Amino acid sequence: MKKYNFYNDYSTGTHPNVLEAIVKFNDEQDAGYGLDKFSNEAREILWDKLGSKNVDIHFVLNGTQANTIVLSSILRSFEAVIAVSTAHTNVHESGAIEATGHKIIDVPSENGKLTPDLIMEVLANHYGEHMVKPKIVFISNPTELGTHYTKKELEKLKGICKKNNLYLYLDGARLGQALVEKDADLNLSDLPHLVDAFYIGGTKNGALFGEAVVLINDDFKKDFRNVLKQRGALLAKGKLIGIQFKTLFENDLYFELAKKSKYLADKLREGITQLSYKFLTDSRTNQLFPIFSNKIIKKLKKNYGFYVWTKIDLDKSAIRLIISWNTPESAIDNFLSDLKSLSK
Amino acid sequence: MKKYNFYNDYSTGTHPNVLEAIVKFNDEQDAGYGLDKFSNEAREILWDKLGSKNVDIHFVLNGTQANTIVLSSILRSFEAVIAVSTAHTNVHESGAIEATGHKIIDVPSENGKLTPDLIMEVLANHYGEHMVKPKIVFISNPTELGTHYTKKELEKLKGICKKNNLYLYLDGARLGQALVEKDADLNLSDLPHLVDAFYIGGTKNGALFGEAVVLINDDFKKDFRNVLKQRGALLAKGKLIGIQFKTLFENDLYFELAKKSKYLADKLREGITQLSYKFLTDSRTNQLFPIFSNKIIKKLKKNYGFYVWTKIDLDKSAIRLIISWNTPESAIDNFLSDLKSLSK
Amino acid sequence: MKKYNFYNDYSTGTHPNVLEAIVKFNDEQDAGYGLDKFSNEAREILWDKLGSKNVDIHFVLNGTQANTIVLSSILRSFEAVIAVSTAHTNVHESGAIEATGHKIIDVPSENGKLTPDLIMEVLANHYGEHMVKPKIVFISNPTELGTHYTKKELEKLKGICKKNNLYLYLDGARLGQALVEKDADLNLSDLPHLVDAFYIGGTKNGALFGEAVVLINDDFKKDFRNVLKQRGALLAKGKLIGIQFKTLFENDLYFELAKKSKYLADKLREGITQLSYKFLTDSRTNQLFPIFSNKIIKKLKKNYGFYVWTKIDLDKSAIRLIISWNTPESAIDNFLSDLKSLSK
Amino acid sequence: MKKYNFYNDYSTGTHPNVLEAIVKFNDEQDAGYGLDKFSNEAREILWDKLGSKNVDIHFVLNGTQANTIVLSSILRSFEAVIAVSTAHTNVHESGAIEATGHKIIDVPSENGKLTPDLIMEVLANHYGEHMVKPKIVFISNPTELGTHYTKKELEKLKGICKKNNLYLYLDGARLGQALVEKDADLNLSDLPHLVDAFYIGGTKNGALFGEAVVLINDDFKKDFRNVLKQRGALLAKGKLIGIQFKTLFENDLYFELAKKSKYLADKLREGITQLSYKFLTDSRTNQLFPIFSNKIIKKLKKNYGFYVWTKIDLDKSAIRLIISWNTPESAIDNFLSDLKSLSK
Repeated sequence: MKKYNFYNDYSTGTHPNVLEAIVKFNDEQDAGYGLDKFSNEAREILWDKLGSKNVDIHFVLNGTQANTIVLSSILRSFEAVIAVSTAHTNVHESGAIEATGHKIIDVPSENGKLTPDLIMEVLANHYGEHMVKPKIVFISNPTELGTHYTKKELEKLKGICKKNNLYLYLDGARLGQALVEKDADLNLSDLPHLVDAFYIGGTKNGALFGEAVVLINDDFKKDFRNVLKQRGALLAKGKLIGIQFKTLFENDLYFELAKKSKYLADKLREGITQLSYKFLTDSRTNQLFPIFSNKIIKKLKKNYGFYVWTKIDLDKSAIRLIISWNTPESAIDNFLSDLKSLSK
Repeated sequence: MKKYNFYNDYSTGTHPNVLEAIVKFNDEQDAGYGLDKFSNEAREILWDKLGSKNVDIHFVLNGTQANTIVLSSILRSFEAVIAVSTAHTNVHESGAIEATGHKIIDVPSENGKLTPDLIMEVLANHYGEHMVKPKIVFISNPTELGTHYTKKELEKLKGICKKNNLYLYLDGARLGQALVEKDADLNLSDLPHLVDAFYIGGTKNGALFGEAVVLINDDFKKDFRNVLKQRGALLAKGKLIGIQFKTLFENDLYFELAKKSKYLADKLREGITQLSYKFLTDSRTNQLFPIFSNKIIKKLKKNYGFYVWTKIDLDKSAIRLIISWNTPESAIDNFLSDLKSLSK
Repeated sequence: MKKYNFYNDYSTGTHPNVLEAIVKFNDEQDAGYGLDKFSNEAREILWDKLGSKNVDIHFVLNGTQANTIVLSSILRSFEAVIAVSTAHTNVHESGAIEATGHKIIDVPSENGKLTPDLIMEVLANHYGEHMVKPKIVFISNPTELGTHYTKKELEKLKGICKKNNLYLYLDGARLGQALVEKDADLNLSDLPHLVDAFYIGGTKNGALFGEAVVLINDDFKKDFRNVLKQRGALLAKGKLIGIQFKTLFENDLYFELAKKSKYLADKLREGITQLSYKFLTDSRTNQLFPIFSNKIIKKLKKNYGFYVWTKIDLDKSAIRLIISWNTPESAIDNFLSDLKSLSK
Repeated sequence: MKKYNFYNDYSTGTHPNVLEAIVKFNDEQDAGYGLDKFSNEAREILWDKLGSKNVDIHFVLNGTQANTIVLSSILRSFEAVIAVSTAHTNVHESGAIEATGHKIIDVPSENGKLTPDLIMEVLANHYGEHMVKPKIVFISNPTELGTHYTKKELEKLKGICKKNNLYLYLDGARLGQALVEKDADLNLSDLPHLVDAFYIGGTKNGALFGEAVVLINDDFKKDFRNVLKQRGALLAKGKLIGIQFKTLFENDLYFELAKKSKYLADKLREGITQLSYKFLTDSRTNQLFPIFSNKIIKKLKKNYGFYVWTKIDLDKSAIRLIISWNTPESAIDNFLSDLKSLSK
């Protein structure tokens, strides 16, 4: 048995098809900064998948850029972001939103999801010129806790946002997982009707790097490339991201990879469940948070890499296991088999 | 009976002595931007009261400026402020700190006070380069909920801050109230030993406007006037604030006014208590939060101005009553007498 | 002969009428933060003078706040300000505009004025997403060099701005001087037709402090009070500025004081001219920049305060003399008489 | 004859060795965000070349990030950057520095270089709290105009900076060109003694993307990764940049490529010179600015891509030709041959 790391879904490189395409087009001269033919081809393919050409697509280098740039591009100085307390942008981006001058109004939420009620409570508590003015609702799908929004839930959020003059933004770092979860009933072509802006995560689903920002609401579109340049998000050899997204989407490789992660995650989740363990959250995606005794955790640590997420009680903790499209199925099998032995 | 407003402690003007001094020195030519002789005289008097000349004193126009400028002057972009959720700078300054690029890590606290435990919990949850780095502890004394810190409590906070390489900053918008509360055992001359920077609020205790920022830790001192200028906090006719602080402190008028407010607040608090009402917080200062039935609140509203602070249950709410040094004692008496009638 | 300081026009206090009004209304309870009846009365008077109620009027504490807040309230992060190199906001506000995130594109101009040609040149040199996008034209009237714009010149600037989708903002720190200069042919009621936003300077023309920001273009109006609060520009006892502007404008005191300064400045300018001295700029306002030999400057320094503005050649420099509405006429007479003696 | 683009040095991909290494290590699991073994190996190699382990090396995604992050990481809000007017960060980064809150004091310079005299002039004109405070000198080597600094010139700049408490930062987007120019007498190991921080450009000399920031002065080092994260400059799969820099430096490929560009640029420059044309600047690097008649430019445009840089007079303009390490020598030959024909 060999040690395997479940730390995250960006520990390796990219899918062979992507690599091949990068190698193939390496020597061609092309325009810089995302104006090349590959980026344009990728846009055409995505417009097709999104069912709309009336959205702007920009490629950025990572998720922190996507979140920070889209949000800050449109907010006035006193306007604020509503997000759950566990939101990536609230906790794990080193204050990137605040560095652009905006408050995040963070809302506790056990499963990492926002609801219309939580939003309405924030609105009720913010009024007048002495307080910040909530303006963008930030959600991740799936969330940081592996949970996901169904199409119906997104429709309700969109409704409440529209009614209250709020923008709805979706962080899609692991969007593939939400799109292949059948119960979610969510397709890429639904998103232009559900949110004002979002991004399709490449890094965590097959790309070397790169995310595709999709701007739906016209308010976001004007002069967006100026903001990209200013925030260091334009890549001189921008075709690199174009080639990747073209490859990932031209034959639905992106969805295939997401399904593969999900298949492996399901197998792992079901195996753990069969051994009678509980989970911190009801995740159906590639992030699982099983609860084990600290003794078992200590033993698992010898052969597997993972983070201990949170203490449950004196004896038990939840750990985080992340499965990637290229996690070997044997790693799942070995983990379950080891867990079974340790559980006796 | 005449209507009286308990909305706040800045509804009127200034003490006659202050007015008189402003009139008296109106025609003299002097240096601008706080470099005038009156500002210097005020500094001398304050240095004397503070028991130290090794602190820098700058006059600013209001509390938002004091808080925003002192905090932002020293923080690096990823460094954050720890404050209670109810802190003025977290709620009522329209995102002023965030507008300078910094996150406020807000901590729930029932009585509006921070404790070493609350600080340690924040520190335990913030580590690594993906998170902001807590760097300044922000407290108000008294707090937004009328409670105050004793000297002993401040010593403990200072200890925990020093040990953990955090600055301790005190918002003294109503500092006079904390200094005249005997149980607090706190003198102005204690503060240079207890915090790294603070401000002495003028606006809410006798001045027309103006606050005195006191920088104790050398880290804060360098080039502070540049930041003041940049943030619009230097007044061309800076002598105006100098004259006010000179007048307020040269014969301890500042403390006398604080005592007056406290005397009136004590009378009001005790009267309300005698009528068997409870309070939201244990305030000994000029902000009281009595809990009344909504029916009584409605009736009181006819003759008195005040804010309903928070709902307690379906039938009861806490209101906020603020008493000023120039609140007529008759207003207190009338309020208590009315309340007694309504309570039958 | 007594020493007199020509350093600036904010060395003393305020006009007696203003003081009197402040004293008179000191004890009245009123709403805070500029929502009081005096501020509203001042607005009514100004609306009348401006010939329009369709402009928003906000009172701020000083010119740096006015400039910084109006400009930053509307610019997106990559949008820039066009200003002459000598502009106050470019040189003497410690980088306040840049601190809000915006570049000032500074344009050399000998007389401190912008022209349509200078603006067109900036536009020609700024294009594409790799460069900032010029969005606001910043002018001062009078300029930092004492020169002023005529109504005709402002019309041309407005035309070029409108055609090129630029806002035109006017810093009116010494606006009174421009309004009483007959050749300028400019009335307060012209300004709503000429610029998108401007401010009427109080500090340098009779007030203790305070400037009236006038927002004409609707784009500037929304949620402006949020920005004021966030940037520390709301005064708790806001009635203080309301009282001042009411007093300054209800009987045209503001214009009377401006005329007084101009009368004294004209006398000084003509006297200096008669003695055959030249000036750095053709100023008709209360800032004069006469050129004297360094020897004469040294001697004048003994009895008068003023800044040496710039070196003309090895032997000569231009000095800056600022005259105020309350400069004693004797100071002018003495200066001229001394200069005459030194010139023999 | 085939059309060739001299637009820039980032129109194609990367060197085959780099591609090969990326492919080779694609499947290995490794730590994220620049903490992987390849990044560490690249650091070891660079430390060796730099002749010092006492410098911190961080990999960022592009030059705008390098410039913006290093400069903003250390400046206080009122501190400013001195740069030539043509500096990349002043003109072509869409106001990125200003967006972090800092003024660039731009200095006209015909050849794109700063001198001690130009710096001293800026210092002489900036004093007091009403002005920004110059704190970092920003230079590019080579400059935007193709010129370069010799070791001796850098020593003088360093001297003047040290003496005046200024940091010296060097933008090395095309650093390779400066290091292979013999007259410059400059080695990589000299830089730790000459500047406080700089970056080694990868994108324009063989890499797909990525720049190596080198922090020499201890003041820059603390918590730098926090700033990187906050500004979106940490790449999840950071090993990608590590692999590239390792490959570029382990066998001096970086210098070999720089020499190749220089060889081709020299050939082109000499060929143009022989045809009796002049240049806008005395560039010895891979950016050439020859001056041609507009008629010739129009004809050259048919077969070659390049930017017209600036108008010289009614009939002539300077164009910019950029040569890359993988520009085919035939493109140079064809260009010269075409130019010769057009020059008859």
